[in-house]
Amino acid sequence: MPSIGIVSPQTMHFAEPLQLQSGASLRDYMLMYETYGTLNADKSNAVLVCHALNASHHVAGYYADNPKNVGWWDNMVGPGKPLDTDKFFVIGVNNLGSCFGSTGPMHINPETGKQYGAAFPVVTVEDWVAAQARLADQLGIAQFAAVMGGSLGGMQALAWSIMHPERLRHCLVIASTPKLSAQNIAFNDVARQAILSDPDYHGGDFYEHSVVPKNGLKVARMIGHITYLSDDDMAEKFGRKLRDIAASGGEYKFGFGIDFEIESYLRYQGDKFAEYFDANTYLLITKALDYFDPARKFDGDLTKTLAATRAKFFLASFTTDWRFSPERSREIVQALLANRREVTYAEIDAPHGHDAFLLEDARYMNMVRAYYEQVWKETTKEQAA
Amino acid sequence: MPSIGIVSPQTMHFAEPLQLQSGASLRDYMLMYETYGTLNADKSNAVLVCHALNASHHVAGYYADNPKNVGWWDNMVGPGKPLDTDKFFVIGVNNLGSCFGSTGPMHINPETGKQYGAAFPVVTVEDWVAAQARLADQLGIAQFAAVMGGSLGGMQALAWSIMHPERLRHCLVIASTPKLSAQNIAFNDVARQAILSDPDYHGGDFYEHSVVPKNGLKVARMIGHITYLSDDDMAEKFGRKLRDIAASGGEYKFGFGIDFEIESYLRYQGDKFAEYFDANTYLLITKALDYFDPARKFDGDLTKTLAATRAKFFLASFTTDWRFSPERSREIVQALLANRREVTYAEIDAPHGHDAFLLEDARYMNMVRAYYEQVWKETTKEQAA
Repeated sequence: MPSIGIVSPQTMHFAEPLQLQSGASLRDYMLMYETYGTLNADKSNAVLVCHALNASHHVAGYYADNPKNVGWWDNMVGPGKPLDTDKFFVIGVNNLGSCFGSTGPMHINPETGKQYGAAFPVVTVEDWVAAQARLADQLGIAQFAAVMGGSLGGMQALAWSIMHPERLRHCLVIASTPKLSAQNIAFNDVARQAILSDPDYHGGDFYEHSVVPKNGLKVARMIGHITYLSDDDMAEKFGRKLRDIAASGGEYKFGFGIDFEIESYLRYQGDKFAEYFDANTYLLITKALDYFDPARKFDGDLTKTLAATRAKFFLASFTTDWRFSPERSREIVQALLANRREVTYAEIDAPHGHDAFLLEDARYMNMVRAYYEQVWKETTKEQAA
Repeated sequence: MPSIGIVSPQTMHFAEPLQLQSGASLRDYMLMYETYGTLNADKSNAVLVCHALNASHHVAGYYADNPKNVGWWDNMVGPGKPLDTDKFFVIGVNNLGSCFGSTGPMHINPETGKQYGAAFPVVTVEDWVAAQARLADQLGIAQFAAVMGGSLGGMQALAWSIMHPERLRHCLVIASTPKLSAQNIAFNDVARQAILSDPDYHGGDFYEHSVVPKNGLKVARMIGHITYLSDDDMAEKFGRKLRDIAASGGEYKFGFGIDFEIESYLRYQGDKFAEYFDANTYLLITKALDYFDPARKFDGDLTKTLAATRAKFFLASFTTDWRFSPERSREIVQALLANRREVTYAEIDAPHGHDAFLLEDARYMNMVRAYYEQVWKETTKEQAA
């Protein structure tokens, strides 16, 4: 299946302050986004794709100056792909607080003339949705054919359906949850502790010291990575395989360096991540995850929370995902059904844990494809009517 | 049930060098241990209790000068307890490399006259068993009525049954595994990375700098702690409960401090641990865990590995233990049965995850009690014969 090919990011500046859930506000800000496909005349074929922790607006295609930098959901979005850009106009938008272009901690705080650092306000999923809604306004999109996301992106899609019920006809929530569990929060907090206690973090103002809290970021990413993979998948890919068998003769090294392949893999992933990801962004995003809990305003009653929604829903979860297990998706499904919403739910038997939502899996991809074919039929029927 | 009361640790010095699995050797060393109950005339009622990661020789009772310092398995070992010290002579021994008294990284290296630090040799479960066997020799115990342990302690009990088949009549392996999985190793390696990358670790020689890598140890412990508890148990105990509700009015704090109870709990556990535990010991013990894999010599064939055993076995696992799940215990049970060994296996439906092996649970405790009653019957029958 061909990729959409060369794409280019765009930016949009917003001069009006954005009031945040915390009470703080961003005086002005910029969003970076990409679009794929063509917006139709009545602007009814737009699909917003929301990103998860370490992703960005770069959903599909690649850059002219860097063909290896392929979008994070390129297998999902493109011509002839499940979310078909020959039919839909797809928008990927980078969230506030990110380190990939939209206004974030490394940008200049207009109040101080210095980089924000830790002074960048804590943003929530709802704040992101508010910022995305303004982008939609500017693009003249009154209603999305669909808003879609996986994991943290799924939380944004769900928040859209609650905050702006009339602005999306379909809501696709993949490998997500209505709120983090205590264990989820615990893993996030350990990751934060690793960053906050790295002396190179400098209270968030490490930019001025020309250092990066690499050790903290590395440990944070290693922890995260373990929770994205399934135990079984790790067992199959790595098991107890030793690294450098040629050098070690298959013997243990009896030191604190690398013995096992899994150690080598995780340390490498951690090092790589620490090279490109921003520590303040990591803190912000884990907090956005922790704070997401739309049922909180309704005393924890998810059915009441979702009563406001008007969209049709597609949910998918993966059997070996122990970060956001199928049970968490089923909670959403049940609350939607209690509200008599139209729901399609796919529980995919896949070995790859939470990461499965990003990977090629014929059953999963076919479910999404079939769903979007329905969305497309509805969209064209409305156009014809 | 009364505790055994006031107990006192003892030490035994070993002048003969101990050859370690790594090829290194300890020129001389000291083991700290405690005993409870009375060794009978024919020395047939001795039970060795092996400890797990952060425990010690202090299995039961308390110290005269610190009545709050109660042994880590006081609910299991004592007069009238499942392992009844009115019948059995119980020995708790602190492992080499520990920070609780036996020769370890903070002791003086006779080769250099300086504290070992990171120069303390990497020790394995098998090395510990070898050291324990010498202690048994000195105490005149040719054969234990039982060797028992939970988690890493269970690995030692299992290693005893393989290395010294004639020296134990019963082997009790609780909440353990024949080897770590890739995921288990991954968690250990993240914990090690947190310690190794703490600038206060100073390559293991932090003693000379009068500092302790507290941040690294704290993160390591927080990670470990998450894996000891079950998701359900955490959900029940903490859920998404907020901390300091009085101060915050039940609102999020929108910062990187503590919002949730679970964060407060884990950070507190981490801080407490960093106060008393040694970073080098933590590294050593996680490596001992990673390296344990007795079937390695038999191309992974656990049945062949356990063919040498002669003991009768008791195994127990806990349904919500995701660190060493019941499946891991079943592997051992099956390999033993394939060798036609006598095995009692209890799979306990308990909510407390891996920690369950340390906690009060009537079904679990009654199973162990009933098993030891059998051991006692056999022991007295042999005496009578």
